[in-house]
Amino acid sequence: MKTKTTMNDGWPRAFPPVECEVDDLKERVLRLFAVSDDAFLAEAENEARISALTQDFLRAKNVCLSTGMASLFERYRESKIPDSPIDAGEYLEELGEQMVANAINTSSPRYIGHMTSALPHFIRPLSKLLTTLNQNQVKLETSKSLTFCERQALGMLHRLIYGFPGDFYDEHIQHRDSTLGMIVSGGTLANLTALWCAYNSSLGAIDGFAGVDKVGLPEALKVRGSQRAVIIGSALSHYSLEKATSLLGLGSENFIKVPVDRDHRISLSALRKTVADCRERNQLIIALVANVGTTESGAIDPLVEMSEVAAEVGAHFHIDAAWGGALLFSRQHRRRLEGIDLADSVTIDGHKQLYLPMGIGMVLLKHPHLAKAIERNARYIVRANSIDLGKRTLEGSRPAMAMFLHAALHLIGRRGYEFLFNESIRKTQYMADLVRVDPTFELLVEPQMNILNYRAIPEPLQQRAAMGQLSPADNQLINEFNIKLQRLQRQAGRTFVSRTTLDRTRYGQGVSIVSLRSVIANPLTTEADIRAVLDNQLEILAGLNKSSTSTSSAGFREQL
Amino acid sequence: MKTKTTMNDGWPRAFPPVECEVDDLKERVLRLFAVSDDAFLAEAENEARISALTQDFLRAKNVCLSTGMASLFERYRESKIPDSPIDAGEYLEELGEQMVANAINTSSPRYIGHMTSALPHFIRPLSKLLTTLNQNQVKLETSKSLTFCERQALGMLHRLIYGFPGDFYDEHIQHRDSTLGMIVSGGTLANLTALWCAYNSSLGAIDGFAGVDKVGLPEALKVRGSQRAVIIGSALSHYSLEKATSLLGLGSENFIKVPVDRDHRISLSALRKTVADCRERNQLIIALVANVGTTESGAIDPLVEMSEVAAEVGAHFHIDAAWGGALLFSRQHRRRLEGIDLADSVTIDGHKQLYLPMGIGMVLLKHPHLAKAIERNARYIVRANSIDLGKRTLEGSRPAMAMFLHAALHLIGRRGYEFLFNESIRKTQYMADLVRVDPTFELLVEPQMNILNYRAIPEPLQQRAAMGQLSPADNQLINEFNIKLQRLQRQAGRTFVSRTTLDRTRYGQGVSIVSLRSVIANPLTTEADIRAVLDNQLEILAGLNKSSTSTSSAGFREQL
Repeated sequence: MKTKTTMNDGWPRAFPPVECEVDDLKERVLRLFAVSDDAFLAEAENEARISALTQDFLRAKNVCLSTGMASLFERYRESKIPDSPIDAGEYLEELGEQMVANAINTSSPRYIGHMTSALPHFIRPLSKLLTTLNQNQVKLETSKSLTFCERQALGMLHRLIYGFPGDFYDEHIQHRDSTLGMIVSGGTLANLTALWCAYNSSLGAIDGFAGVDKVGLPEALKVRGSQRAVIIGSALSHYSLEKATSLLGLGSENFIKVPVDRDHRISLSALRKTVADCRERNQLIIALVANVGTTESGAIDPLVEMSEVAAEVGAHFHIDAAWGGALLFSRQHRRRLEGIDLADSVTIDGHKQLYLPMGIGMVLLKHPHLAKAIERNARYIVRANSIDLGKRTLEGSRPAMAMFLHAALHLIGRRGYEFLFNESIRKTQYMADLVRVDPTFELLVEPQMNILNYRAIPEPLQQRAAMGQLSPADNQLINEFNIKLQRLQRQAGRTFVSRTTLDRTRYGQGVSIVSLRSVIANPLTTEADIRAVLDNQLEILAGLNKSSTSTSSAGFREQL
Repeated sequence: MKTKTTMNDGWPRAFPPVECEVDDLKERVLRLFAVSDDAFLAEAENEARISALTQDFLRAKNVCLSTGMASLFERYRESKIPDSPIDAGEYLEELGEQMVANAINTSSPRYIGHMTSALPHFIRPLSKLLTTLNQNQVKLETSKSLTFCERQALGMLHRLIYGFPGDFYDEHIQHRDSTLGMIVSGGTLANLTALWCAYNSSLGAIDGFAGVDKVGLPEALKVRGSQRAVIIGSALSHYSLEKATSLLGLGSENFIKVPVDRDHRISLSALRKTVADCRERNQLIIALVANVGTTESGAIDPLVEMSEVAAEVGAHFHIDAAWGGALLFSRQHRRRLEGIDLADSVTIDGHKQLYLPMGIGMVLLKHPHLAKAIERNARYIVRANSIDLGKRTLEGSRPAMAMFLHAALHLIGRRGYEFLFNESIRKTQYMADLVRVDPTFELLVEPQMNILNYRAIPEPLQQRAAMGQLSPADNQLINEFNIKLQRLQRQAGRTFVSRTTLDRTRYGQGVSIVSLRSVIANPLTTEADIRAVLDNQLEILAGLNKSSTSTSSAGFREQL
């Protein structure tokens, strides 16, 4: 006999309460999991709805709707889990109208502000496969072929970076004692993993001391007679490096930020002085970190020289190539990474210039046994003699994102990536040229890669800007002006660039200059799209000019 | 004019080299990214191929092919990235024949050895949507609606755990200063994030000292006059907790493992003694960790009592409910989590009993401002006054896995999850009953949840086992016997249970007993499937008996 139950609480505001029978609930829930022709039909129905959503989404050139935050706040404020299942059709409709409609079109050719891009279309069906297989890479028993696949894909990237002879790879690529790299959820974990390896190695077991991994940092320093342990990188290092330094118990201030030169590369003289200071004070240098593509401007640190400094002090040399690792594919641009094979570890993000979906970073390790410094075991999983990947990863259970990497390396190929990267560079130079010739804009940094830093100059200040006569007050005004411009552009949602603040420009070290920042990596972005982004900014600027009662800088100040 | 190029190196062994024109390569690569009717057709073609693969995969009841490791090694040993793109059709064919065929059927109703399950079918189309939107949750500018959606889903779980009044949630659920929880890649990062918050809080700024986050652990301890800082949990805590303790620079030995009682719950007297010892030695207790569902046997620690001990010493109280959080949905079983609302932080894994795909863990925080202890900013992203989620997360860029969570909470509902969990418990009891009545098997731990620990006893020892007269040598033999059984079962690939080693059974504390371990959470697993798993083991055992020349224990020993 069925029990009648009325569900009259716990429903999210957006969905009306419905009545249902208890037995009906059981059936409905089991149907969600069933493997049958009927179930595949239901799935196909949802799939058709979602394909319609994805196609509309992909066809849109605009970045987002101008929906305000308050309205989204209102939509997503319900805090009770619905008591009974909502109808899938209703939910998907709501999802389309609210969630999808108000997502950011990160693949729009006119969304050139962050490190996202359109993805190759084979990724979309593969994501369904990945979810269906639902492998767990922590352990061979939960992944089997995907464990081997992951090791292979990482081995391929290792070879791209380090280029050891073939028999090195024959030996190590699938050897359970060797770890050529790890797949992690993103660049932050890749950097953290690399520094963790360095930390455990440089503070390892010594003279009866069991090592930092076991005993901890305070004892590890005491045993070595060091006051502090530090990690050194440039002032433009990604914030994840400071975060990692803090997580490891070193304290964020022990990530030492060395000033950069006008090209945003680490100053070698300042680096050498920092290193000498640390040694003088008996501070242990755990690692030196070089940037291959700073987040703000795409600058590449001098790798060979940094590796020499690292070798001199016996420090681990890590390269954060989360963004710039893609240069490796380009015969034309690769020479700028001379010395990358001298790194002990290299971070590359899959979800950046490898055109993989969000959620895949990699760290590659030169020495196949370095990761033993972080190895752990458990008896129900990752047992000591197994080939289980989870023995030497920061994360435990994790998805087989390796499948995307493996597919893209094969379906795009080395030359495909080369073409994509060269194109990005070419289009960035095109945008730089447009910025250079228009007096409304000022190029702030000579682009070394495919990130462009520029700003708009209000009309009344353009002449002074051209003559190099801007005062600190002028620059302050221009900063506010660019913040406003970027906000208006973002809110309108037709095109997008991001913004940052630079401390190192022609205006001197330590002078904060707000910069518009464009990141050009989307293969769909054409010259016309780039012009459309700048035209959109010019339109907004014209509006600002018109609404100003005066063309003086005071007039501009008034309306900011 | 086109340039002819021959690609004769860099091809993986499995694919034949092809010739292609340079201009053709460009077109092929751009076609991968195109948004057009043609591109959607190509995508649909791949989708059809992949749907066929996924349906075959889902219909299979077997766990995996018996393909040997050596053959997979051989298949995935090529280390050169293909120079030119491979044809998608060819690649997908290979993918089906090798990668998919040799993946583990983690959703098989007879794969009841790890914490995986069949997934609800709406997840599969959603995964395509997730990939298409490709949002980055680090920042509002790269996610918009999905930022709000994530906060809502976390707020719902927070309410499920802590049950604060509605106006608490109205205030905090979307407030930029509040963090009710974080979505991370899995339970390991959830535990690490919780402990990081506890670490930064308990070693925070004091008397002119800027805090551990900034200055590091050695100074932080010195300022407090402490010799060591520790984290305390049971001997059955997940290995991620020791890993996290090590990562934070505390050293793995400073994760203190308190013995458990016969039910695998932390011994309260031993806990109190440990805490007293730490205080006597002037050691700072950063956190106490309770298990809600130990990985090995699903045991639940005494939460109320542990929270009292934590409060007494002013330690953070963390609950690792990665596996057992699902009890919260069940009115019948929820009472066993009394005290969960006393925790400062709770880990729950989405990819376990919330039936979400691999790659989503959560940590919920009782105090909406606790996460400020780990906040960081950067000028190109996660700026100080923003609503950006990335300000207070360990990871940086990360996918909108929140979409799966949001959908499942709505499409399964609280009562749907309740039904699923109750069913899992019921079926586990069924399996326990089968094990109890068959003299071939021995139940090792009374199941508290839906994990079952048992073992097979070789025929010659069954009588002694029944009379409780097994010697240490007998147990050693039985251990080897069960390792062999599990290996043969796994290799054959028809059914699957995992194995672990227990130190706490009726055979005494510290006596290592190899246990078969079954985890029953798959809604598709029926009583018949459970019988099939045990029958499969009986068959293998019969084979072992037959191949043995004697029925004595010496005979068994010979063939192991």
